[in-house]
Amino acid sequence: MKQGEFDGRFLGVLGGMGPMAGAAFMARLTALTPAGTEQQHIPAILWSDPRVPDRPAGYMKQGADPFPWMAHGLGQLERLGAKAIAIPCNTAHLWYEELAAAAGVRLLHIVQAVIADLRRHGIDRGRIGLMGTAVTLKLGLYQQALREQGYDCITPADDELERFCTPSILHVKANRIDQAYAPAVDCARLLQDRGADAIVFGCTELPLAVPHALRAQLGVTISDSIDALALAAIDWHQSGKP
Amino acid sequence: MKQGEFDGRFLGVLGGMGPMAGAAFMARLTALTPAGTEQQHIPAILWSDPRVPDRPAGYMKQGADPFPWMAHGLGQLERLGAKAIAIPCNTAHLWYEELAAAAGVRLLHIVQAVIADLRRHGIDRGRIGLMGTAVTLKLGLYQQALREQGYDCITPADDELERFCTPSILHVKANRIDQAYAPAVDCARLLQDRGADAIVFGCTELPLAVPHALRAQLGVTISDSIDALALAAIDWHQSGKP
Repeated sequence: MKQGEFDGRFLGVLGGMGPMAGAAFMARLTALTPAGTEQQHIPAILWSDPRVPDRPAGYMKQGADPFPWMAHGLGQLERLGAKAIAIPCNTAHLWYEELAAAAGVRLLHIVQAVIADLRRHGIDRGRIGLMGTAVTLKLGLYQQALREQGYDCITPADDELERFCTPSILHVKANRIDQAYAPAVDCARLLQDRGADAIVFGCTELPLAVPHALRAQLGVTISDSIDALALAAIDWHQSGKP
Repeated sequence: MKQGEFDGRFLGVLGGMGPMAGAAFMARLTALTPAGTEQQHIPAILWSDPRVPDRPAGYMKQGADPFPWMAHGLGQLERLGAKAIAIPCNTAHLWYEELAAAAGVRLLHIVQAVIADLRRHGIDRGRIGLMGTAVTLKLGLYQQALREQGYDCITPADDELERFCTPSILHVKANRIDQAYAPAVDCARLLQDRGADAIVFGCTELPLAVPHALRAQLGVTISDSIDALALAAIDWHQSGKP
């Protein structure tokens, strides 16, 4: 991109996975930015292509490969001048190394963002209850990073994932947000009963299933991967670093 | 843009004016699209540059000119392959002719979208109460188009705009959404008392000030310019036309 008067420290957002999570990321980025006027907000570009094939199926070789679609989106964001990129989709982070290698700019990591968010909430050890897609939980996307930082992890059993977590995520993706709340909350309560000190909404559809206004009544710290990634993006923007 | 396997009927969204309105547009585009799976949603690109100078001040030559910034954003969206463009900012539509001339693709018109939305609500004549920025109301952005379609228009008086409409809009732009509700509702009630058959939220900050869940209690039809523009974009996408 040529230098010019409109250049800026643009955040690129590889969204569309799902489209509501990408839109919610943009809204939370705005709400969480300490800005007193419109012009102080972070310039951003959202590439929202919901046609990207399903990530869980793709990763398990049970469906089309989403990687070329994601790499294309990264390239488009860079063409327009994005200086760092956030991907508000946890499952996409199973390809993090390949995506970071394909990206010409810094790629924020949603799991590192959640760890920073847990610390921000004062949770620097203890038992973390994980919610997310079956494939991210089974492949340990969060577990490895959390254990390296001294946390313990608990996850729903396979049948609990199928009964609670997966349907909640699919309801959001199918525009049935009202129906997504109950199974997500059932899953969170189950992890709480097993001693979770905090619960991670480790799929970007889950924060949509359980709106902020209804979280206090759960009585447990929630780390929301959309908010965590937005805060990481704000930190990046304010840092002035590449 | 070169032809390729990732091409599609992308909607370009010139957002950032303000950034929360652009994000809300993306969320409502998703919520209002009749899609049963993620992949059926509309591919879209949001250019969210909140640094665009204030439109009301710019139009009145009391501040920097936002037009070059908006034209640049249109160009960026087209570079990435947008096939039509929506601008979720009513005041920006004071430059509609110039922007449409600068755009190489179809530029949706938010006022025409609102007129279609009023008809969708069964309001095809009568008195329309307009809320928006002072400059759009004074310059008649909506009034001319509505009168051509046989509607009457009423607007708040100057001092009412200053007391109710303007502060509500500024609260949203300054991330104080909680404080935006009361003045917006006061303004709507005032127009209702003067016989409005429907009220137009003719500034894209106003739908954020009065969330959908709280509108039924107003007891009057609301045409929300974010929702109206999202529905126009969905119509465009489904039509298959340029």
